[in-house]
Amino acid sequence: MPKQYKISPDSPIGIFDSGIGGLTVVKAVRAGLPSERIIYFGDTARVPYGPKSQVTIRRYAREDTEILMKHQPKMIIVACNTVSALALDVVEQTAGNIPVIGVLKAGAELAAQKTRSGKIGVIGTQATIGSNAYACAIREENDALEVVSKACPLFVPLAEEGFIDHAATRLVAEEYLSELVGKGIDTLVLGCTHYPILRRMIERITGPEITIIDSAEAVAGKARQLLGSQTMLNGGSAQPMPHLMVSDLPQKFSELYRLFMGTELPDVELVGV
Amino acid sequence: MPKQYKISPDSPIGIFDSGIGGLTVVKAVRAGLPSERIIYFGDTARVPYGPKSQVTIRRYAREDTEILMKHQPKMIIVACNTVSALALDVVEQTAGNIPVIGVLKAGAELAAQKTRSGKIGVIGTQATIGSNAYACAIREENDALEVVSKACPLFVPLAEEGFIDHAATRLVAEEYLSELVGKGIDTLVLGCTHYPILRRMIERITGPEITIIDSAEAVAGKARQLLGSQTMLNGGSAQPMPHLMVSDLPQKFSELYRLFMGTELPDVELVGV
Repeated sequence: MPKQYKISPDSPIGIFDSGIGGLTVVKAVRAGLPSERIIYFGDTARVPYGPKSQVTIRRYAREDTEILMKHQPKMIIVACNTVSALALDVVEQTAGNIPVIGVLKAGAELAAQKTRSGKIGVIGTQATIGSNAYACAIREENDALEVVSKACPLFVPLAEEGFIDHAATRLVAEEYLSELVGKGIDTLVLGCTHYPILRRMIERITGPEITIIDSAEAVAGKARQLLGSQTMLNGGSAQPMPHLMVSDLPQKFSELYRLFMGTELPDVELVGV
Repeated sequence: MPKQYKISPDSPIGIFDSGIGGLTVVKAVRAGLPSERIIYFGDTARVPYGPKSQVTIRRYAREDTEILMKHQPKMIIVACNTVSALALDVVEQTAGNIPVIGVLKAGAELAAQKTRSGKIGVIGTQATIGSNAYACAIREENDALEVVSKACPLFVPLAEEGFIDHAATRLVAEEYLSELVGKGIDTLVLGCTHYPILRRMIERITGPEITIIDSAEAVAGKARQLLGSQTMLNGGSAQPMPHLMVSDLPQKFSELYRLFMGTELPDVELVGV
């Protein structure tokens, strides 16, 4: 059982991800809720979760949540689509009475609101797509909706290598997306935190008729709404950089941080896993 | 201190890698030494090591070696280029009096023997190339040799996604390799266990004038030589499949196993890390 503690509007929002992809969620939360204190944990020692088994992903999800719980957050945001898909219940259990929201359900809700044609595309890692969790979450909103999914496992390494605008990325993206576009979707969910980095390339292939749903923006909107309804919004002044924790300091870390956040790397705390 | 035990020609050869890329080494050892028993550990729960920090890579290397030592091997082969580059001393310490050979030194020795022009190219992960370990090992063989290195981080995901013959892979490979070819190398070391899977594509770009050194084949040759000199070769009949241990059973595991070994997945033992 998790220890109980008292939360207040000044308590931080805890966000975690398998690596640093979740920084797109940090960026979206900061944009929408600049007065909130943010604690971020990125499990850079064990990234990526996507290709791993459900048993391992669930164990990692529990450990990641425990790391955040030490900082007594008022809310936990699961920025990792893989954990949102396969282990949200583990996070909820570990978080006790603290509200937990995940990118997946937030993205699914927004997609269900936005679609007109009723045909929604979802792209993500192998694990996220294989779990069928986006399709289930979307159809929980409205079971008349049709969902077409496609795993795009090369998008993460291409984004991390900075092949943002490269002809090879375009070829890969065309291969991944042409099938979805051909099936007449009018809404496409970016079901992986890295994908917003490739958003322009993706939009070039999907065209102006298809609405892109960024799950990071969706979960930030949901966090604002939920904290507001609980009168737990921080009314203070704008916060400095988030408290950043990682399980490993990879070699290209500051470069990647800049790619995601557009700013220089702040101080980082290294935590054992 | 590791426990001492008595080895015999019938003792197994222990091989480990950060994931399943080391299966290219298993394949090469089986081809050259079909009578040897092989114990393989692939750290699939924490793969990839390449982008991680040296501290973390060294800890993983010790733990991986300990897993193999429980099976009392007569030799340990480090199939992981990253560990060979950054943590071979940790493996040697953990293995006590058991001989340890790594893909890196084996590949470096063979490249130094084969080059005529004295200009050798090396490709590998960010960590392997960044460590400069291949260049050092090659120049330890002959300090008149010139080494040109290039990190090719997208080759692993492209190989694992089966983009073996894809136009996108060709564009990426051209971008990575054209600089090396332009510098007049006559020998190219595949300094990552995954790269033999892309060997044909790589050869198409490097052309017939450049000799490809496969570090997996090199280390298998070295193992045969060393065991022979110690009269530790197994004289028995051909062995069945290797004893396979992994720290996670990823979703596409049997598919990947087939990609590397060309055969169906045998029984697998799951070990905790």
